[in-house]
Amino acid sequence: MPKILRLHEFIGPDGLRIDEVDAALPESNEVRFKVDAFALNYGDFELMENGYVFSVKLPSRIGDEAAGIVDAVGPDVTQFEIGDRVSSLPWMNEGYGVDGEFAIVPETFLAHYPDNLSAVEGCSIWVTYLTAYYALVEISKVKEGDYVLITAGSSSAGMAAMDVAHLLGATAIGTTRTDANKQFILDSGFDHVIVTGTEDISERVQKISNGKGARVIYDPIGGPQVMEFAGAMDQNCDIYLYGGMDPRPTVVPEIEMTQKAAVLRPYSVYQHIYDEEQKERGIKYIYEALKSEKIKIRIDRTYPFEKFREAIDYQLKGKGRTGKIVITP
Amino acid sequence: MPKILRLHEFIGPDGLRIDEVDAALPESNEVRFKVDAFALNYGDFELMENGYVFSVKLPSRIGDEAAGIVDAVGPDVTQFEIGDRVSSLPWMNEGYGVDGEFAIVPETFLAHYPDNLSAVEGCSIWVTYLTAYYALVEISKVKEGDYVLITAGSSSAGMAAMDVAHLLGATAIGTTRTDANKQFILDSGFDHVIVTGTEDISERVQKISNGKGARVIYDPIGGPQVMEFAGAMDQNCDIYLYGGMDPRPTVVPEIEMTQKAAVLRPYSVYQHIYDEEQKERGIKYIYEALKSEKIKIRIDRTYPFEKFREAIDYQLKGKGRTGKIVITP
Repeated sequence: MPKILRLHEFIGPDGLRIDEVDAALPESNEVRFKVDAFALNYGDFELMENGYVFSVKLPSRIGDEAAGIVDAVGPDVTQFEIGDRVSSLPWMNEGYGVDGEFAIVPETFLAHYPDNLSAVEGCSIWVTYLTAYYALVEISKVKEGDYVLITAGSSSAGMAAMDVAHLLGATAIGTTRTDANKQFILDSGFDHVIVTGTEDISERVQKISNGKGARVIYDPIGGPQVMEFAGAMDQNCDIYLYGGMDPRPTVVPEIEMTQKAAVLRPYSVYQHIYDEEQKERGIKYIYEALKSEKIKIRIDRTYPFEKFREAIDYQLKGKGRTGKIVITP
Repeated sequence: MPKILRLHEFIGPDGLRIDEVDAALPESNEVRFKVDAFALNYGDFELMENGYVFSVKLPSRIGDEAAGIVDAVGPDVTQFEIGDRVSSLPWMNEGYGVDGEFAIVPETFLAHYPDNLSAVEGCSIWVTYLTAYYALVEISKVKEGDYVLITAGSSSAGMAAMDVAHLLGATAIGTTRTDANKQFILDSGFDHVIVTGTEDISERVQKISNGKGARVIYDPIGGPQVMEFAGAMDQNCDIYLYGGMDPRPTVVPEIEMTQKAAVLRPYSVYQHIYDEEQKERGIKYIYEALKSEKIKIRIDRTYPFEKFREAIDYQLKGKGRTGKIVITP
């Protein structure tokens, strides 16, 4: 019987087990695919702790991102056929989940990915790039001459935001806590780096941008550090909080935000992906950029399925990574 | 010589003095008017403490809102003539200020006000109603069936927001700290009232709105109370922070905001009024509503000029007021 990863208790990664189950047939509008690779995301860890923003029934499959080959389609499926190379979209909900040797999801959760990408790359696209897409392209309409401040710049999400900022002609400034990742961030393509442990964020952004400030601040950290953006904002700055990595309360620099007409946006790709038109626009934009090799997926490591826990521990260590962590069942 | 109110030190109202000065002639694009009434605003007090968001040179005239009759126009003035009834717009900047027996401002800072209003009413329109207008009408596009939660509902700003919410067909929920103002708020036209000292904001909003939540939260208070909006938000809720009455840091309910795709907007009318088209749209909307008596200006008390300090102390006490506080020089 095929193996899948399932959460049995809301206690973090310790609640996960590899279970053997029957690969059921897809039902109406569902597609089944053989999984060649799946990727880890921070949202998975929040789900393991407390269900994240979803109502999850245990035991529950987990995972948003897998790539593979369609091997069965349910009735009324119109967009996919057996043999198609597909990867799943960030859509974790209603007990679906794709981490394992096979996955069954509604066809609306699936996309084709460009032929020039491997399955390992194919499962590493949508969460980070669509998250960056809706923020930078659709909401903030970032344009040439803008500055985009990306905290935790060395994360996969940060790198994806840098890529999208560059597609839009903007200057990308990455932050990192210590000198350790500084050179790596610059080598990855960031135009500037701020070491938050020793440098003042606002001062540095002011200097880098010649007093203009950041049109977008793309921040997975939150917490008290948000106060340090006080002097880093351009007019109409959008501050996206998308990760909640800092568990402390998020405090906002209200006066400076008022002066700059800045807006705080606690943000997730789930705010946009369920809208069919927005979904299609996002997929098309990222698909084209990948196909034309204007952007390139970064993979740090791959692990075999039985070493999933090693992969998770490596992801949670969160230091010195250079791209996505992928499991190949 | 005519008398004007001027700030001599950034020490709050104690920094104010009535000074006698020459009423200079208006320069290019400026209009001089004899002031029949001027109104107090919280922004004035922030300016008295620290210059607010402006760079102020002392001694400085203060005040945004005055109404009177044009008695001189400078070269190149096109919209106003001697004898016109005018009131000034929220535009405090560059050392202008209208509190006193006369005022000189660029014509772009002025508007005509409807004939059916007195000067006392005429000086009490623009700050509160334009502030409510840009938020509820232009940014949030509030519509029939929406709920608007207005904290400090008994303030002039709160009442103006209630009026605009009603013009848009929305339901207005006001908050107040104690039972003392509860009946007054209902009598003023709010559809519902929440007494924050004894009632849970989120629970009450959920109940009032049948689980829908508030499309807009219009909040001059800020601080830790913003956390109490966690369960009060409708999808795409806009939280406006426009007063900063609570000096403690503003903390946001990040997870719930993410789930609702809610946005925090530290907000001021100054973010919009300097745009000529936005200015004209706002004036037209409020002018028409006043002229047709769909909305009505609320005046609490008037004071003679020499008792300006009594007026200020009454405003700062902030309890049990029923409208604007106006000084008639």
